[in-house]
Amino acid sequence: MDAVRPVFYVSDGTGITAETIGHSLLTQFSGSRFQTDRLPFVDTPDRARDAANRIRAAGEAARTRPIVVTSCVDGSLTALVAESGALMLDVFAPFIEPLERELGEARQQRVGQAHGIVDFDTYHRRINAMNYALTHDDGISMNYDEADLILVGVSRAGKTPTCVYLALHHGIRAANYPLTPDDLEEERLPAKLRQHRNKLFGLTIDPIRLHQIRQERRANSRYAQLDTCKREVAQAEAMLRREGIEMLSTTHASIEEISSRVLEHLGINREMY
Amino acid sequence: MDAVRPVFYVSDGTGITAETIGHSLLTQFSGSRFQTDRLPFVDTPDRARDAANRIRAAGEAARTRPIVVTSCVDGSLTALVAESGALMLDVFAPFIEPLERELGEARQQRVGQAHGIVDFDTYHRRINAMNYALTHDDGISMNYDEADLILVGVSRAGKTPTCVYLALHHGIRAANYPLTPDDLEEERLPAKLRQHRNKLFGLTIDPIRLHQIRQERRANSRYAQLDTCKREVAQAEAMLRREGIEMLSTTHASIEEISSRVLEHLGINREMY
Repeated sequence: MDAVRPVFYVSDGTGITAETIGHSLLTQFSGSRFQTDRLPFVDTPDRARDAANRIRAAGEAARTRPIVVTSCVDGSLTALVAESGALMLDVFAPFIEPLERELGEARQQRVGQAHGIVDFDTYHRRINAMNYALTHDDGISMNYDEADLILVGVSRAGKTPTCVYLALHHGIRAANYPLTPDDLEEERLPAKLRQHRNKLFGLTIDPIRLHQIRQERRANSRYAQLDTCKREVAQAEAMLRREGIEMLSTTHASIEEISSRVLEHLGINREMY
Repeated sequence: MDAVRPVFYVSDGTGITAETIGHSLLTQFSGSRFQTDRLPFVDTPDRARDAANRIRAAGEAARTRPIVVTSCVDGSLTALVAESGALMLDVFAPFIEPLERELGEARQQRVGQAHGIVDFDTYHRRINAMNYALTHDDGISMNYDEADLILVGVSRAGKTPTCVYLALHHGIRAANYPLTPDDLEEERLPAKLRQHRNKLFGLTIDPIRLHQIRQERRANSRYAQLDTCKREVAQAEAMLRREGIEMLSTTHASIEEISSRVLEHLGINREMY
């Protein structure tokens, strides 16, 4: 059996950039096993030396060379971490020189810029969008004029987490309208949604998965019964199809993928926070 | 005046990895101006050719060479995108060869693995953690035995977005206890929190910023008055200090940074979703 390889995400900031790319890289090597650890805020020589010691110790304990994915902007800190003997993957290094040449500008070595200090406007946009998502989560508060988009689907199809993700990461005001059994019997789009047709996106889900999710929430209720789930999903899909509203199944999709596809379909281009 | 440089995040998946590292790189070049765009799900030759055309057109319109940050796993798609003439920054390429050598394993070229299909367990953990955060957001539902951590602070200090972020990205059950004026007069930790001391982390905020935030929420209320904000913050900080509870000011910190620091302090190591 191969050793479990220690992997460290080392950064002078939050380490999110290093972990994001590191995680993406590791998923491409499914024959190896990894034990990952985050070492954020490594922004002084002392902290870099501490990190190096911890990384070296992990390698000795696992009897294998550790891997470090680092996004430290200050090269002297990276050099101190490298004294651990780990394989060093510097996520910025390969791209700085081509960018400097292309832009005719030297990079600035300020730390923690990507996910660090923020201006008040950005903070506000994210928080307001999140408050909006949380207060437009039930189909009752329906000030949809302000909505950037509205997700429609049966209860527990994945609307709430998607709305919250879109708010947090894109500052988007995403409302969420759960199709009730009454709505579904009507066989057409609820009146309050019709005037916002261009903001609508449907989420659907495999009825068996829906049944599992609802069982966890209200075990053995009528709401959770497989028959109920099957009927609601069939009615919802038929209605959305008839109304010409784009629809995505969340059964095998991550929240990130659902969010990306919704934005792409509605043609919304917003930077990611 | 320099041209605004078109930047495209191109991916066969969501594009989150490309955008995360691309954004981090661009923040290091503050002398240039960028117009960024996401081109996700570029997973067929046709879509790659469409992307190349769009990128080329953007460069012609801006009269400057576009920059592409790409995370396409399939090199033949990247080659098609490169026909746009853009500066190509491939976020995986520089790291694959050293990793293959170190791990003694060839990478697998499956697309969209990082933020794509998910297993049910992962989905469940995220969703359950988010439901937990949303139902333990008010200091009323207080089933804190299940909490991984509890954020404490005055109303509007940044607790809710941090809890939701921790749930979404780390599957952590983060509860949130708002210190009420009554709690603050007591000058000691509310009884219901004392038994969970090792899960507590305090968030504080500059009173002027707090005043601005509360004004937006309830303009000209007593709750929003600068004097109220000053008093509450001073009382909360004094109490947390006296009780020996770690505290962080959210005034200039991003949600990501707050989350990272909370996890680091409480010694919680969870992979990021």
